[in-house]
Amino acid sequence: MLRSPSVCRLVQAVSATSSRTATVRRRLPDFAKARRSYSSPSPNNNASLSRTTGVTILLTSAATLVLSHLWYQRAPVLAESCDPDQLRKVQPADIGSEKAQYAGAKETQRVIELLRSKLGEDQVTTNPDELLSHGVSANTYHAAAKPDVVVYAESTEDVSAVMKIAHEYRVPVTPFSGGTSLEGHITCPFGGICVDLSRMDRILEVHETDSDAVVQAGAQWEAINEELKERGLALFFPLDPGPSACIGGMMATGCSGTNAVRYGTAKGEWFLNATIVLPNGDIIKTRQRSRKSSAGYDLTKLFIGAEGTLGIVTEATIRLAPILPTRVAVCGFPGVEEAVQAVGEVINRGVPMQCVELCDTLMMSAIKRFGNVNMPLPSLDTIFFKFQGSDPASIDASVKIVSEIARNNGGQDLVFAVDDAQSEELWRARKSAHWSAMALVEGSTCYSTDVCVPVSNLPRLVHETKRDLAEHGIVGPLLGHVGDGNFHAALIFKADVPGEFEKVDEAAHRMVERAIALQGTCTGESCAPFSELIPAGEHGVGIGKRVRQVLKDEHRSADAGPQMYLRSELGDGTIAVMKTLKNALDPHGIMNPGKLYPD
Amino acid sequence: MLRSPSVCRLVQAVSATSSRTATVRRRLPDFAKARRSYSSPSPNNNASLSRTTGVTILLTSAATLVLSHLWYQRAPVLAESCDPDQLRKVQPADIGSEKAQYAGAKETQRVIELLRSKLGEDQVTTNPDELLSHGVSANTYHAAAKPDVVVYAESTEDVSAVMKIAHEYRVPVTPFSGGTSLEGHITCPFGGICVDLSRMDRILEVHETDSDAVVQAGAQWEAINEELKERGLALFFPLDPGPSACIGGMMATGCSGTNAVRYGTAKGEWFLNATIVLPNGDIIKTRQRSRKSSAGYDLTKLFIGAEGTLGIVTEATIRLAPILPTRVAVCGFPGVEEAVQAVGEVINRGVPMQCVELCDTLMMSAIKRFGNVNMPLPSLDTIFFKFQGSDPASIDASVKIVSEIARNNGGQDLVFAVDDAQSEELWRARKSAHWSAMALVEGSTCYSTDVCVPVSNLPRLVHETKRDLAEHGIVGPLLGHVGDGNFHAALIFKADVPGEFEKVDEAAHRMVERAIALQGTCTGESCAPFSELIPAGEHGVGIGKRVRQVLKDEHRSADAGPQMYLRSELGDGTIAVMKTLKNALDPHGIMNPGKLYPD
Repeated sequence: MLRSPSVCRLVQAVSATSSRTATVRRRLPDFAKARRSYSSPSPNNNASLSRTTGVTILLTSAATLVLSHLWYQRAPVLAESCDPDQLRKVQPADIGSEKAQYAGAKETQRVIELLRSKLGEDQVTTNPDELLSHGVSANTYHAAAKPDVVVYAESTEDVSAVMKIAHEYRVPVTPFSGGTSLEGHITCPFGGICVDLSRMDRILEVHETDSDAVVQAGAQWEAINEELKERGLALFFPLDPGPSACIGGMMATGCSGTNAVRYGTAKGEWFLNATIVLPNGDIIKTRQRSRKSSAGYDLTKLFIGAEGTLGIVTEATIRLAPILPTRVAVCGFPGVEEAVQAVGEVINRGVPMQCVELCDTLMMSAIKRFGNVNMPLPSLDTIFFKFQGSDPASIDASVKIVSEIARNNGGQDLVFAVDDAQSEELWRARKSAHWSAMALVEGSTCYSTDVCVPVSNLPRLVHETKRDLAEHGIVGPLLGHVGDGNFHAALIFKADVPGEFEKVDEAAHRMVERAIALQGTCTGESCAPFSELIPAGEHGVGIGKRVRQVLKDEHRSADAGPQMYLRSELGDGTIAVMKTLKNALDPHGIMNPGKLYPD
Repeated sequence: MLRSPSVCRLVQAVSATSSRTATVRRRLPDFAKARRSYSSPSPNNNASLSRTTGVTILLTSAATLVLSHLWYQRAPVLAESCDPDQLRKVQPADIGSEKAQYAGAKETQRVIELLRSKLGEDQVTTNPDELLSHGVSANTYHAAAKPDVVVYAESTEDVSAVMKIAHEYRVPVTPFSGGTSLEGHITCPFGGICVDLSRMDRILEVHETDSDAVVQAGAQWEAINEELKERGLALFFPLDPGPSACIGGMMATGCSGTNAVRYGTAKGEWFLNATIVLPNGDIIKTRQRSRKSSAGYDLTKLFIGAEGTLGIVTEATIRLAPILPTRVAVCGFPGVEEAVQAVGEVINRGVPMQCVELCDTLMMSAIKRFGNVNMPLPSLDTIFFKFQGSDPASIDASVKIVSEIARNNGGQDLVFAVDDAQSEELWRARKSAHWSAMALVEGSTCYSTDVCVPVSNLPRLVHETKRDLAEHGIVGPLLGHVGDGNFHAALIFKADVPGEFEKVDEAAHRMVERAIALQGTCTGESCAPFSELIPAGEHGVGIGKRVRQVLKDEHRSADAGPQMYLRSELGDGTIAVMKTLKNALDPHGIMNPGKLYPD
């Protein structure tokens, strides 16, 4: 698999002269507005392109990679559109870390020398381009800053050596694996050391009988699955956040993905143990490799979702699942409520489903117009089902049950893909929904956001959100992992029309408030909302949901302080416990400072 | 559901004059030897009884409850067989807590007065019987001690009020829910307050569409499932440790059960959130009710498996699973290796199985002789399969695959129960295996122990354990949750023969060492090994695996200190992190002191 930085460089070289790149440059001169958005092809362009060989490729499975490349090129574009030195402008006060005292410039230089003496020549770099690509991400619109030095770790011992130095000199350390974060996890507001784990990308052991594998933190989930396939194993690692996401980041953000309705998330039992380098450089292993253990606190889980603020994961034992036959179908419903009700019944009947995805009428309309699908699709709120079974007979049995449940809830007959090729086409149409959505408005950009609520509250959330969007004149097709109560809004806007961004930003903010009020969460999912297209593997809190709130509070709410999302979602007491844990394990606050809440 | 203390009293009243009780009293005069053991009926008795109406009942589903009663009566028996005051003899040095400084007798009296003034009249007791039944368990052979006062909490606020007082006066607090621990979690080596949560046993909310329920910590998992059934829901909570185990204890020990091969353990995603009272009395809620969240550290998981040493869980949102049709079959294999290989293939094919249980040849022989099963059973190492599917067609498809895999691994044809009644009979025979095992040696007692290793190492562990038992002349039939690499040994011995206990104790010790060397764990499972019969819901570390090690070290190993199991399994660094967390959240060490490692 190509990795993000190389993708950046590759695409920069290949498409530097393309008109698309030029458009992006014109459109995003302001760093503060370089948000989680990208410009769409115009509907006409899309429609005409769809008749050419070029776009046949673009809309096949290769589309993902190609579009990923186009997306990634925005990192260097951003770098050119603002003064790199300005990136250091993020100050402790911006992120609530006024107490942090880190090494000064002189000590940092000494640290860089020390790192060079301890590690290999090619493992330590201060090349400005490398610093920039490690601290700045095109995936976010947040303030960003580069590290002082990038270290390419090649072993757990390397990471330990770096941490020991960082610990001694009080230098902040930011881990970097896939670099696909959507919330600014990789940015370095205090400079310091970026520990790049991308060279630690190996599968160390595979145990077929045990259905597990020992892997390094820099291994990408897709690469792991590819290698398992090459070894002839019918097993895979089922957590599927955005392409390019790596084990380290996936653990750090407690990721999930489209398979979560069947397999759960990173917070389940997919990581049997982890090797972790603590902030003081000590190396620990959280558990042995057996599937179950009751020996002491569940430390593996403590580091899953900690966003790299407690230590650096360098290795993990992952559980694998059998690859099973699947079958894909769509089913139109009279409304979101009926669709959600049907999905709930399907799940409560124990029907094995790998994915259950909702697209609302507006999204379906976009897919039908621009999704390049050669089969009849409903014009209603529609569920995309991916059935799964150990053999065709099991799947047939499941189909029968689901058809009946759908009918009982006013659903249409299920429309099946007739063969594997059409299955892929249909599922790709779902995956490409975001691009189709953008094609609804010529020259538009998309602001994507997601939340998660208990499934029963989803219809209300969707209903209120749709009404809100309509009232504010926002084109905002919806889709979601409805089996988990998780949905995404693709808020379409024109970046060059003053006030448009602010309008969708406000709408997204209201959506989060609505979700929290409905017993939900502001960070519904830790995978990219349109993860198959945007190579971004994680949401979480990061720096994003803090800075953004600080900005919002200036003009929105007098009594709301920073970190309002987390505060209203969890309460001060819960956040205080997180802070206590952070301070206990990282008393000098050097691990990924400024991220999550507690620093 | 009857609760343990009431069961004790009930059975004491009903069967105080039975000869069986007398036998137990005679056999267990020495508290130090009142181990996880119980006397067996003689084979002859068992055989003759099996022909009477009495034992037809005993060996039907009611058997579980009846035998549970017989088992529980041992608590008052123990109390009579030793001086209650002697129970306080456990000293800080015994459990490695020399630094702990708690309130003296005078302050403790003041605390009791305060508790009485804050809570209801019937919520605070110092009745000696109540103290004894809360600090001493017949499930363990460890040193035990009673609390100074028992408080029956009726709300989260009650627990908070107690903890605030305890915090102010530095009084140790031990939570108590089901009281079924096998490792002495409920004992109070420093006296103090026992917080009994058994009155907090309600289901507060059920959300069918969301497949979840909000429950109090004192609710028993069986009672929850019973109530769901009464409400007409086809949903259940799939974690199934021993009968009488409650949500609070199940979370505290990170429990699992026979369904773990299908549903995973408490460390998975069955607990969506928890309301927790911290050691200082603060109340926090770890998360909202949505299925997924990436908002900060996963605090729910921190308290799962913490054995009550970090705070007291008072409420939780649990996920529910659909109740599905099942079908039960057995299959004989030429050896454990072939059986394990077949199970691995079944799991890797994704065949939906609710349970996969192994009984070795010796255990099968016991079941065939004493298990009261009216169908032909293999005389080989045998797998008990519980197939599961959303409808009969799915199950048929699974059966076909499993039959083929079994045949390919030298297995016999699957023998199916012909109807529900025979299914129950067959599964009950598996559940009753422990009693059948004891019947192999007249007048014997059983020492049960369990470990867990990666599945591929299970054949070797079983092979070496069987050889070891044979070399030492120990009758030790085996069974296990083979799908998870987890097995239990029923080490049969005669308590009144000098040296017999020490012999099996040593054997169990070697088994644990062997498991750890094979990448396994000393606390393989957090449910009772024969959980359907012995009402004990948890293993874990507790006080058991510490005290025992201290005792062992005196005569076994010069270089082994206390807590050797955890040390060799996890390493000092990992244990140091646990200690750091403990000290950060409970700086005065008042939460369940002396348990787990870090105090």
